[in-house]
Amino acid sequence: MCDECGCGEKTIRVDRNVLAANDAIAEQIKGWCKRRGILLVNLMGSPGSGKTTLIEGIAGFIEPADLFVIQGDLESDIDKERLMGAGIDCYQINTHSGCHLNANMVNDALMDSDVSGKSYIIVENVGNLVCPADVDLGQHLNVLVSSTTEGSDKPRKYPPIFRGSQLIVISKADLAEHVGFDQDRYMADIGGVNPKAKVIKTSCGEADSFKAVADFISHRRDHLVGAHHSH
Amino acid sequence: MCDECGCGEKTIRVDRNVLAANDAIAEQIKGWCKRRGILLVNLMGSPGSGKTTLIEGIAGFIEPADLFVIQGDLESDIDKERLMGAGIDCYQINTHSGCHLNANMVNDALMDSDVSGKSYIIVENVGNLVCPADVDLGQHLNVLVSSTTEGSDKPRKYPPIFRGSQLIVISKADLAEHVGFDQDRYMADIGGVNPKAKVIKTSCGEADSFKAVADFISHRRDHLVGAHHSH
Repeated sequence: MCDECGCGEKTIRVDRNVLAANDAIAEQIKGWCKRRGILLVNLMGSPGSGKTTLIEGIAGFIEPADLFVIQGDLESDIDKERLMGAGIDCYQINTHSGCHLNANMVNDALMDSDVSGKSYIIVENVGNLVCPADVDLGQHLNVLVSSTTEGSDKPRKYPPIFRGSQLIVISKADLAEHVGFDQDRYMADIGGVNPKAKVIKTSCGEADSFKAVADFISHRRDHLVGAHHSH
Repeated sequence: MCDECGCGEKTIRVDRNVLAANDAIAEQIKGWCKRRGILLVNLMGSPGSGKTTLIEGIAGFIEPADLFVIQGDLESDIDKERLMGAGIDCYQINTHSGCHLNANMVNDALMDSDVSGKSYIIVENVGNLVCPADVDLGQHLNVLVSSTTEGSDKPRKYPPIFRGSQLIVISKADLAEHVGFDQDRYMADIGGVNPKAKVIKTSCGEADSFKAVADFISHRRDHLVGAHHSH
């Protein structure tokens, strides 16, 4: 990510080594979770897009005790406290100036936590529409939260993270009209960068709008566990 | 920024070299602009926070012909087209996967552009609340746009970019009540990380709300040019 500063080959080579080391750890995490019947979700989105609200929302349809959240923020444990208050076990990572989580951080969090009996681990990445797109955490599923208040031009401006997500959640749908969100244009642009993505609209005021997200994630877990058991 | 991946000293050393090279170019840009009576502004904020809208807004109070915008986006020239339509000269940088602009990019943009007669160059950074905070572009002023729809917890979660900005613009103020934006808490938290920052509220529906921003920037230029002329 930070290899565009004009120092050429040297940085690129270091980045390649770093990414290779990251991906090896990510691969271990992915298998470790699968063997335990745990679906690992990488939840991404801009600052304030509604990532924590999404977790609270799906906890209305997935047993909170089945969920474990690894929370990434530069500073503070605001979201951890929020989720613990909703009965969801949560581990806080503070990256300080770090712009995304990496597999090493997730691995440390898992080693520090008791996830026995959990069915889902949701890693809430640092609020950022750029850097998390490239860094494998060992997830089985990438979920992107993109709010109507950010504007309908986001798929055109930030294509990598839209391209890499299997589920795109349009949050704050109740504000769409107020902010002039152009849904037709938005959907057409998603079709351009990632035609296979599932798209679901949610509003924090409508608890039922999160059911489709919970169902999607739940089906993904069924598929993961089924594939595992057939081995 | 991307030095937290566990590869230790090697990356840190490379990053230091990259930042030193960046800062040397930034220092040249800063002097180059000052000698021409141009205030260079680094405009930062989350994706969809309202950076381009802010530029359109101040163009109601600063002569559009006095402005030059260097526009940073991963992809597309949507914002350049928007600003050109408002009579503002604009240069588009596409970073592709790059998470922030750097001094080298700004230098290339300046060499490629005619900024004679301009009083202000506004560099609209990539939408990102993390990475741009650390990278000097040669700016005389850091302006952060933070929208009410992102939530009132942003100063606590992303302190570096709030700490480094001389002006913080609370955008989408008209939506504050609708999204439950806690202004008292927000202002108290800004007081904690950056008590000297100037804070101004704007709404895109209220053209006059941008006058205070234009005035602030204009006074900063007066100060820069006065300080220059006294040498």
